[in-house]
Amino acid sequence: MIQAGIIGGAGYTAGELIRILMRHPEVKLDFIYSTSQAGKPVSSIHQDLLGETELTFSGEINPEADVVFLCLGHGNSMKFLQENQFSDHTKIVDLSTDFRMAAEDHSFIYGLPELNKEEIKKANLIANPGCFATAITLAILPLAKNGLLKEDVHINAVTGATGAGTSLSESTHFTWRDNNFSAYKAFEHQHLAEIGQSLKSFQPNFSSELNFIPNRGNFSRGIHCTAYTRFDGSLEEAMKIYQEFYGDAAFTFVVEEELHLKQVVNTNKCLLRLQKFGNKLLITSVLDNLLKGASGQAVQNMNLIFGFLETQGLQLKATYF
Amino acid sequence: MIQAGIIGGAGYTAGELIRILMRHPEVKLDFIYSTSQAGKPVSSIHQDLLGETELTFSGEINPEADVVFLCLGHGNSMKFLQENQFSDHTKIVDLSTDFRMAAEDHSFIYGLPELNKEEIKKANLIANPGCFATAITLAILPLAKNGLLKEDVHINAVTGATGAGTSLSESTHFTWRDNNFSAYKAFEHQHLAEIGQSLKSFQPNFSSELNFIPNRGNFSRGIHCTAYTRFDGSLEEAMKIYQEFYGDAAFTFVVEEELHLKQVVNTNKCLLRLQKFGNKLLITSVLDNLLKGASGQAVQNMNLIFGFLETQGLQLKATYF
Amino acid sequence: MIQAGIIGGAGYTAGELIRILMRHPEVKLDFIYSTSQAGKPVSSIHQDLLGETELTFSGEINPEADVVFLCLGHGNSMKFLQENQFSDHTKIVDLSTDFRMAAEDHSFIYGLPELNKEEIKKANLIANPGCFATAITLAILPLAKNGLLKEDVHINAVTGATGAGTSLSESTHFTWRDNNFSAYKAFEHQHLAEIGQSLKSFQPNFSSELNFIPNRGNFSRGIHCTAYTRFDGSLEEAMKIYQEFYGDAAFTFVVEEELHLKQVVNTNKCLLRLQKFGNKLLITSVLDNLLKGASGQAVQNMNLIFGFLETQGLQLKATYF
Amino acid sequence: MIQAGIIGGAGYTAGELIRILMRHPEVKLDFIYSTSQAGKPVSSIHQDLLGETELTFSGEINPEADVVFLCLGHGNSMKFLQENQFSDHTKIVDLSTDFRMAAEDHSFIYGLPELNKEEIKKANLIANPGCFATAITLAILPLAKNGLLKEDVHINAVTGATGAGTSLSESTHFTWRDNNFSAYKAFEHQHLAEIGQSLKSFQPNFSSELNFIPNRGNFSRGIHCTAYTRFDGSLEEAMKIYQEFYGDAAFTFVVEEELHLKQVVNTNKCLLRLQKFGNKLLITSVLDNLLKGASGQAVQNMNLIFGFLETQGLQLKATYF
Repeated sequence: MIQAGIIGGAGYTAGELIRILMRHPEVKLDFIYSTSQAGKPVSSIHQDLLGETELTFSGEINPEADVVFLCLGHGNSMKFLQENQFSDHTKIVDLSTDFRMAAEDHSFIYGLPELNKEEIKKANLIANPGCFATAITLAILPLAKNGLLKEDVHINAVTGATGAGTSLSESTHFTWRDNNFSAYKAFEHQHLAEIGQSLKSFQPNFSSELNFIPNRGNFSRGIHCTAYTRFDGSLEEAMKIYQEFYGDAAFTFVVEEELHLKQVVNTNKCLLRLQKFGNKLLITSVLDNLLKGASGQAVQNMNLIFGFLETQGLQLKATYF
Repeated sequence: MIQAGIIGGAGYTAGELIRILMRHPEVKLDFIYSTSQAGKPVSSIHQDLLGETELTFSGEINPEADVVFLCLGHGNSMKFLQENQFSDHTKIVDLSTDFRMAAEDHSFIYGLPELNKEEIKKANLIANPGCFATAITLAILPLAKNGLLKEDVHINAVTGATGAGTSLSESTHFTWRDNNFSAYKAFEHQHLAEIGQSLKSFQPNFSSELNFIPNRGNFSRGIHCTAYTRFDGSLEEAMKIYQEFYGDAAFTFVVEEELHLKQVVNTNKCLLRLQKFGNKLLITSVLDNLLKGASGQAVQNMNLIFGFLETQGLQLKATYF
Repeated sequence: MIQAGIIGGAGYTAGELIRILMRHPEVKLDFIYSTSQAGKPVSSIHQDLLGETELTFSGEINPEADVVFLCLGHGNSMKFLQENQFSDHTKIVDLSTDFRMAAEDHSFIYGLPELNKEEIKKANLIANPGCFATAITLAILPLAKNGLLKEDVHINAVTGATGAGTSLSESTHFTWRDNNFSAYKAFEHQHLAEIGQSLKSFQPNFSSELNFIPNRGNFSRGIHCTAYTRFDGSLEEAMKIYQEFYGDAAFTFVVEEELHLKQVVNTNKCLLRLQKFGNKLLITSVLDNLLKGASGQAVQNMNLIFGFLETQGLQLKATYF
Repeated sequence: MIQAGIIGGAGYTAGELIRILMRHPEVKLDFIYSTSQAGKPVSSIHQDLLGETELTFSGEINPEADVVFLCLGHGNSMKFLQENQFSDHTKIVDLSTDFRMAAEDHSFIYGLPELNKEEIKKANLIANPGCFATAITLAILPLAKNGLLKEDVHINAVTGATGAGTSLSESTHFTWRDNNFSAYKAFEHQHLAEIGQSLKSFQPNFSSELNFIPNRGNFSRGIHCTAYTRFDGSLEEAMKIYQEFYGDAAFTFVVEEELHLKQVVNTNKCLLRLQKFGNKLLITSVLDNLLKGASGQAVQNMNLIFGFLETQGLQLKATYF
């Protein structure tokens, strides 16, 4: 049993981590640090836990914890780590954007197991990928691995309202979002940088454009992504490349059936489907933005670091309908 | 053509009034008063109007308007009328709760046409009914009219998220409300007072209880209400009473089919259905909380006051699906 | 490890059983019998399982299985058991209505653990309760236990679209149900019989009416129920009665917070809240109709029969948002 | 007053036509022909009309009607016109795909007013455009008008469940569609042909590809479309081209605000927004698939043919929230 801590306990990703870790057979959830909620029952915020747990939010951290997950707003992780010290053996998994781009001033490993499994196993510091970044990168990474990204990639993805976080805002107000749809941050989403970094780690000469239009969907959870680009081989060749690449992936599967979002909601899975039209390869990917796109992947990284079964605590029952 | 003004233009009920009045053949929408939005295009807030109107919010009222609709928060109408003067011929329709209860210090008429049509026609001041109050009162008023409310009435109703107004709140956050359901203010909803007042105007000795459980539904618009009470007559007798009572109603209809909410969404209609089980009469009512439950009924009152066709400007196309 | 079989594998309750049992540490899912789907992969119907399982539907049963779950349409379980023989040690859990009412010609035990835990542990044949029946019975059973059901009970409940099963119908067509609400089978729902049977097992003289209005909500999963009746004691006394009654319940909890449906979606929990208004006690209950209202409770019964931990395989992560 | 008839009255597009035409000041709705529903009240199918109309479905057509709308399944319009004769003065508006592609064996005019207004005014036979076709064509037609479609166009659009018609199917079952999202018919949607035909009527040398991915959204009404292609001019130049092209359009407006679907739901409007990123022009378009994408546009065509005000009967109140 390892001791785990969560920093910033009131948001969606913290809530999902709590739900997973309190049932994880190898983990003791040692503390959930929240300055704003300190002393209150965790079930007062994450109210599905009523009756199930006596956990309370803590105003103090345990610097000796074996693993600490940072669920802070983007920009705050770096500040938190400057102001708080953990022991040498403490592993840090940061869910913000702060350390996703490699830089000389930090040694965080980008925590996408399909890309970096061996480095993750040895890492002390993990930068957990973004939700759109995970869905898009997994859709096209096998092409980059084989040096096959030759022209622009055209990407359209839609995310649920949990993607916008717990803060109240007009576009997450029920009367606005219900039965609505809208695009935002077209061509300029902040996840493009980490996607490009991952692709170039395999195909350094990749210089085409990633044309990405994100959309707000009127559902709570999940990302549905379509991406297409030129691919001169056959569908069978594409399938072979993808199946080989994901052959040992614990949660990412290439399937032949038409995909829909609810296949993966409330799971840590990413499903991929390939289709060929003319000289284009279309890849569809679906995942749960809060699990494979955030907290589930964070636990998957923890499992790899501590040598647990990669799927431990993550074989979740899909809601499905 | 009469000149109409709206006080408080950014909320849902103001928006619905604007949509109706700008297409009403007898009305010129003269001003929409909003201190917070003064100078801005109306279509910047009510964005369905983009391309259709050049109207802007005004920082001033026109005290000579023929009719003024008050779309202010509850408690603010009284204050507004104390601080602002309108001409003697100006009719006021207040959509707040401020003047719904008869009192010695005001002469507002309760604007439920099915109850008070003749008084409304002669009124200068109208207190427009609440949304739940309209749905519930219309469901049981014919019984009171005939002195037949003899035992407790059991009422359960569900409202859409627009019922909670434009303010952002946890229970109107999309991720909370989507696919959710909850009861609130059980037995204590503020509309019980005006419902009781209407019932007693017909049946002064009514002294049983109105047991009312309001609920939050995961839809944007509409109220669905079921109410039952002891009724010793037959279904046919009940039907006769209701059909007689609503024989000349412009928007309230008694039907024999099973009802569902979307029959009335985006219309000014209230549909009622009667069923008899043992010695109980069950009445189901459905209406759009923002139209028959608010702005549509306000325009219906205006039509009555100015002698227009009662349905003028209100024969709206239902969304239905 | 026990061998489990499922009869009728394509519906919602079968799907949920598969999702639970394939992750249950004490169970081997031995066969899923479906004449219509025999030979096909289970993941072709329950498509969230793509990539996770190689299970196929079977055209044959294994009569030596330790436990068999019947997920057949109402009326078909009796017929199936007449035409198929299982070994003497095989336990049967039937999810239909066929055996819920005690009768001389069968010896099924009504599988509501909060009512019949000791009988269930010794049972060979279990009639798993209905979804509405579970939500309503759990809401008022402690009153019956104490002989306190003295007057009519007024019940209003709303269920998600999964409650109507997988068959396509007008009221489960998306364009009809989306943002809609409707009542149905008022005062005449078929679950009233089993609720009455459970209440009378504790309070044989109970002779008041259960006035129950079921509703169709525009969500997929869950039941939200409010029930009120006369109660002369204080709220504290009511709380004491309920907490005592549910003191050792594995999944039913009495809480003080306002309830909403999504607290229990995708879990096997039932949450209850008590409020007192005048001389009335209001009980709100929420559960997932497919889990505590069907397949989860079936597995809970299996756990009791085989002496497993009652929560084994059922500590599911709520979807929550 | 002209006499109008509708052929095939039970579907969504027929329902919308009925709702519009029964309130159209220049139209008498003479007959609604439905073999399956003949004799039944129209309000038994289109149940929002309960209380408002005594219209019944007819088993016979009136061959002298001034205008007849064909709301038949694709492939059935041609057959119907072969088997039924109308008078010489009868105008036909066909809502199916049957006559949208110009051919030697018919003289139907493609009824997109923004493209063909003058021809429509003189037409006897109108082929009403498809819903996706309208959204996409309006998004890029001004570029074709100016010979500026030089490279591939990348189009992603999402439609509501009404787009799939009234037939019950798995992907329109509530439990499937609710909170779900999926792509279908990628690169191969049947509307691509009519879009290409419209573009080439302006820019005959257009030979690039229209890469179109349609999606199923979990809402009932509306189409949200994004399209981008190379455009070497500035945003201002693009705005000028679009505003000039749509300067006299009755329902299509170019706006500068971020768009969302609910701005146009239950209206006959199409809103367009332009953005420039690098050398790409992104155009977003939104419309209601049943109105501007079907029945509203059909009435707009009727208005043009008969010389009515183009917006007559079509100034509908948006639902908006």
